[in-house]
Amino acid sequence: MAAIMKGGYRGQIYPINPTVDEVEGLRCYPSITDVPGPVDLAVVVVPSRTVPQIMRECAQKKVPGAVIITSGFGETGEEGRRLQQEIVKIAHEGNVRFIGPNCMGVCSSPAKLSALMIPFLHAKGEVAFISQSGGYGMQLYLRAQNVGVGISKFISSGNEADLDCVDYLRYFAEDEDIRLIALYIEGIKNGRKFFEAARGVSKIKPIVVIKVGTTDVGSKAASSHTGALAGSDRIYTAAFRQSGVVRTSNAEEMFDAIKALLYCPLPKRERIAVITNSGGVGVETADACVQLGMCLPTLTRESQVKIMEVIPPFGNPRNPVDLTASLNMEAFLKVPDIVLQDENVDGVITLGLGVSIIHAMFPDTPREAFLGIIKGLNDQLVKTYKKYDKPVLVINPAADMEVEAAKLLEDNGIPVYVTPSRAARAMAALLEYKRYREAAV
Amino acid sequence: MAAIMKGGYRGQIYPINPTVDEVEGLRCYPSITDVPGPVDLAVVVVPSRTVPQIMRECAQKKVPGAVIITSGFGETGEEGRRLQQEIVKIAHEGNVRFIGPNCMGVCSSPAKLSALMIPFLHAKGEVAFISQSGGYGMQLYLRAQNVGVGISKFISSGNEADLDCVDYLRYFAEDEDIRLIALYIEGIKNGRKFFEAARGVSKIKPIVVIKVGTTDVGSKAASSHTGALAGSDRIYTAAFRQSGVVRTSNAEEMFDAIKALLYCPLPKRERIAVITNSGGVGVETADACVQLGMCLPTLTRESQVKIMEVIPPFGNPRNPVDLTASLNMEAFLKVPDIVLQDENVDGVITLGLGVSIIHAMFPDTPREAFLGIIKGLNDQLVKTYKKYDKPVLVINPAADMEVEAAKLLEDNGIPVYVTPSRAARAMAALLEYKRYREAAV
Repeated sequence: MAAIMKGGYRGQIYPINPTVDEVEGLRCYPSITDVPGPVDLAVVVVPSRTVPQIMRECAQKKVPGAVIITSGFGETGEEGRRLQQEIVKIAHEGNVRFIGPNCMGVCSSPAKLSALMIPFLHAKGEVAFISQSGGYGMQLYLRAQNVGVGISKFISSGNEADLDCVDYLRYFAEDEDIRLIALYIEGIKNGRKFFEAARGVSKIKPIVVIKVGTTDVGSKAASSHTGALAGSDRIYTAAFRQSGVVRTSNAEEMFDAIKALLYCPLPKRERIAVITNSGGVGVETADACVQLGMCLPTLTRESQVKIMEVIPPFGNPRNPVDLTASLNMEAFLKVPDIVLQDENVDGVITLGLGVSIIHAMFPDTPREAFLGIIKGLNDQLVKTYKKYDKPVLVINPAADMEVEAAKLLEDNGIPVYVTPSRAARAMAALLEYKRYREAAV
Repeated sequence: MAAIMKGGYRGQIYPINPTVDEVEGLRCYPSITDVPGPVDLAVVVVPSRTVPQIMRECAQKKVPGAVIITSGFGETGEEGRRLQQEIVKIAHEGNVRFIGPNCMGVCSSPAKLSALMIPFLHAKGEVAFISQSGGYGMQLYLRAQNVGVGISKFISSGNEADLDCVDYLRYFAEDEDIRLIALYIEGIKNGRKFFEAARGVSKIKPIVVIKVGTTDVGSKAASSHTGALAGSDRIYTAAFRQSGVVRTSNAEEMFDAIKALLYCPLPKRERIAVITNSGGVGVETADACVQLGMCLPTLTRESQVKIMEVIPPFGNPRNPVDLTASLNMEAFLKVPDIVLQDENVDGVITLGLGVSIIHAMFPDTPREAFLGIIKGLNDQLVKTYKKYDKPVLVINPAADMEVEAAKLLEDNGIPVYVTPSRAARAMAALLEYKRYREAAV
């Protein structure tokens, strides 16, 4: 109740409780059937044994949907399973569709509805996030905004006794506010149905997943946690690939892939150019790209000649292109244009300009002064990046120390990564999705 | 000059330049031979063609050591290589040992010497960091302090024309201020010598490396960058393992491993217990541990009974131990003690208490209030963690949003990681090092 009200929900809220007259200043009704007008959504947080009766009342009131947050159902054993079957039967017969039970709730930024334990709504976002893990899902939902991923709709799906991932996939496929669907999966009950749905949805918008329970131990733990069967991981891997679902192995990788898939055009092929002003970063990025199946093409002779005109003689016009640490601004601004224009290049990973390192060199000058300079340079760079229909990913090894600097780029649709490996992995996600889209045409 | 002075160096500084009388308020000498007293270290930043003459003067003045920051030597081609050979010869004949050329400099917190482009010294630290990459090395040196790794001595080793990684390894092995040696390597010139040295040093203190140039493309890029031969990556992998060197594949993994190796006792074997209050985190951590060669043992019957007494009935006393999201403080405080005591457990990965998530639940209460509560709980937990000679790693999915909360633990020697995968990988690093130490006795 408090979260819904603090979240700023602007519709009618009806507290239901037989023992009090008022909750948080709102008139309280003994039963949902006593509410005067129609009810769109019931959020159920009563003890598990009371849930069947509540669901019967929802059916009687013709409430179309419910979120059952209460736990103590299929995840707890034989008795819980029976109780779960009972509420499914009541809901089915009464035409009430429900999310949960044993979940953390849902929220929607457009509806300003935060039916979660936390009254927290992302300011903006084009991502729908569905999590079978309640606590961790909520943590990730909370963290996403901080790492530059806006989630406008979040579902903690719990035991998925009625509505499940397949329903959510299909729903968000048609939701025009949503450009990408992310899922945290412990186990899928109806694999065939899920992958059939995913195959279709992936043609319209990217799906990014974390699927845990990849090992026997993890899978056993998942099963005791939500009662889902985790299934063989190899089968999952193959099925995800065949249905165009981008699988990531942890939260950082997921957010990294989401940023690239949301912001960047897809690369035509796997030929990546690396631009660096530190040899080490160039080498590390080259390694990571090649290990992930990309290649670093030789730039055309024409590009190389043009690059040599602006970089110092000890720089390198080949790929990785090394601008050297000389901080030559002409090279910084012109080389990306030359490289992006090159017909052999499908995408670029470039070392960005950091505020922290420059500020460290000149500690007496206020940090803000450098932020201003870098904003000016980045504005020019963004214009160059956007001229071509090719993905550009930026590495800033200090991005977590200078969120303002990273935001200058990310607000303009250029994702920033802390390490070469993470940028390369995000590029690989773009490529993987591109291949599916191409094959699925 | 400015960096050395701003860094707070307390010894004598003599600027050398034939054209001016004063630099930054200090008397300037036309040549190093004109300096009245003895000179311990020459920092050389003159153009490359002048370096031979400067080195001759250093020899004449009997300067024992130099740092040649100047580039334009072995990394640039035939002429540069000849120039490099010339300075090596002069230094050798004149008994001057030197770092570089083509490097970013060195620094030492105990000496308050920052002979780098940035006047930046870590406040404290027990790590020596040697980087063959200048620009990226300096970025990592800058970033390390922010992620909880204190580097008290940093060497940008450049072309390693005279002193090389082997010398630095041996030196820091004997340096009592240094408990761990980290290296960013592009290529090793004398592999046999390096690995022989590493084998010995690893018996005394851990060595953690990033070795780039793992692919042909990266290795070619590395070679054009510092002139080093990158060599076959498989050989490196085997040689690192045989010499007890913990190899990590990027900066995040390196800092993660360093924190564990600095703070934690080594696990006796690979039997890891996972404690979580979110099922999802438990499963993901279990997966990551098993994938990295660890196992999740069944806890003793006695432990399970004790755990069941404090967790809710829908919790899980097996491994992963699930305290559930009920935020039961008795369980939070007691379960780690029970688990750490268990004879089947060699190390623990546990989901920590986050300020952000609790603050999100109760946004009207000041964040500081929760920080206070969590500090109190963490102080008790740290006491429990320290009672046993077993490593404890904490996962906090919001650690990067609440550096203060993570610091509460890290200042007490308990490392904190943002994702389950990163914690598991750090535990694997401990185990890898433990196995070497055991075999090497």
